[in-house]
Amino acid sequence: MTFYEKLRSIQEKNESLLCIGLDPDIRRIPGSLRASANPVLEFNRRIIEATADLVCAYKLNLAFYESYGEAGWRTIQATLALIPPEIVSIGDGKRGDVGNSSDAYAQALFQTHNFSACTVSPYMGEDSVTPFLRDEERGAFLLALTSNPGARDFQYLRVRGKPLYEHVIAKAKKWNRRGNCGLVVGATRPRELKKIRALAPGMPLLIPGVGSQGGDLKTAVRSGCDRSGYMAIINSSRGIIYASAENDFATAARGAAIALQEDINRYR
Amino acid sequence: MTFYEKLRSIQEKNESLLCIGLDPDIRRIPGSLRASANPVLEFNRRIIEATADLVCAYKLNLAFYESYGEAGWRTIQATLALIPPEIVSIGDGKRGDVGNSSDAYAQALFQTHNFSACTVSPYMGEDSVTPFLRDEERGAFLLALTSNPGARDFQYLRVRGKPLYEHVIAKAKKWNRRGNCGLVVGATRPRELKKIRALAPGMPLLIPGVGSQGGDLKTAVRSGCDRSGYMAIINSSRGIIYASAENDFATAARGAAIALQEDINRYR
Repeated sequence: MTFYEKLRSIQEKNESLLCIGLDPDIRRIPGSLRASANPVLEFNRRIIEATADLVCAYKLNLAFYESYGEAGWRTIQATLALIPPEIVSIGDGKRGDVGNSSDAYAQALFQTHNFSACTVSPYMGEDSVTPFLRDEERGAFLLALTSNPGARDFQYLRVRGKPLYEHVIAKAKKWNRRGNCGLVVGATRPRELKKIRALAPGMPLLIPGVGSQGGDLKTAVRSGCDRSGYMAIINSSRGIIYASAENDFATAARGAAIALQEDINRYR
Repeated sequence: MTFYEKLRSIQEKNESLLCIGLDPDIRRIPGSLRASANPVLEFNRRIIEATADLVCAYKLNLAFYESYGEAGWRTIQATLALIPPEIVSIGDGKRGDVGNSSDAYAQALFQTHNFSACTVSPYMGEDSVTPFLRDEERGAFLLALTSNPGARDFQYLRVRGKPLYEHVIAKAKKWNRRGNCGLVVGATRPRELKKIRALAPGMPLLIPGVGSQGGDLKTAVRSGCDRSGYMAIINSSRGIIYASAENDFATAARGAAIALQEDINRYR
């Protein structure tokens, strides 16, 4: 099964385009979990158990895990083991390096860990990106137009009449020989999102930035889906995992996930 | 002491612009080390002990360590503890993410681990880069023009008459408020290296790509140094750490490092 097929399959099964970002900040985890051997893992376990029927994907922002050092990598491994295999797991590390180093990153993400997809930075070009696309069962989302303010610094620069991010998209389409390349496009860029969907009608779009970053959900969904109403992945992290700071955080996360899933499906 | 001062100080003390890349591939480590509890760490220890008086920096390519999972992160930590504190240690991970994620990456590299510098990818712009520049004692090398073939895909695209990498350099100069920002420029780009040194006369340049990637050492040194003959960091990985595949690897690495250090100093 190719990565696209896997994504489409779970989106249909759970009738969900929702991706929950598991970006646990130890300072925001309820006090009742702090006594457990691995509070972050326990937090993730409770969130996953409460939401696995509502999502198409979980995304782990590797930055947060790395800041815990060695224990963080153990937590990634253990968290991945808790995610049902039919759900997409995205290692969000925005990697990208010379060919043999990207090979090692791809090995780290897809073999050492068992992510089904990852995010990749395009700046270093083809040999830095294609190692992440070698296995048709694993996906790579190339950064195109990101949700943060700094996107203005380089991504909009005009090259031969088109913004840089469109050149990235053109290359992504060329490199997508196995049906496993996607794009990252921020929900904070509603107009561009529509154009990007037209440029890459069949690619999955990973769309962060709804919720705390202020992206408009309705436009993100309407513009981000493909013609059949799938292949957009709407990510929410803090809005769901910190829906409550108390012991009811898992129930609250489920409530927030249901509300967002329903909103997304209303707009599709 | 700012990062620039630290770099200059060790370059003067050891009279060396040489950086050794500790990118250990378990398959290329001599068989005699494989029985030790942590062969990669033992390999690094022997290389560091044999070369610490010959270098200004060690660079750890994080990709290789990550491919070993949890043990890899333990090895990073233990390797950093073996590097004398006056020598620059570079965490080469080419990170870069939205502001709060880059904060977490900076924490991982500079606090959880204790790197004195890192490499950063520019694609996501200011808020993705500046978290790595907050502490004047720690440096960040922004990817400008890389040594790999894929550099052609985006870095040379012309924006308002100038290649993209020059726009990155202009921003790097602007973001360099604390004297701790450097640039990555491949030794495989001799003409551009000269131009880049002129554009950023005071910045340290991290220059990979001599040796196995085919960059010309003489031009890299002549073009990469600042006016006083410092602030270029010439990285070599495989050419030094795999100078011998036998038990004499550390002695051979010392020999290769001396030869390269002398060549560099001859061309300065």
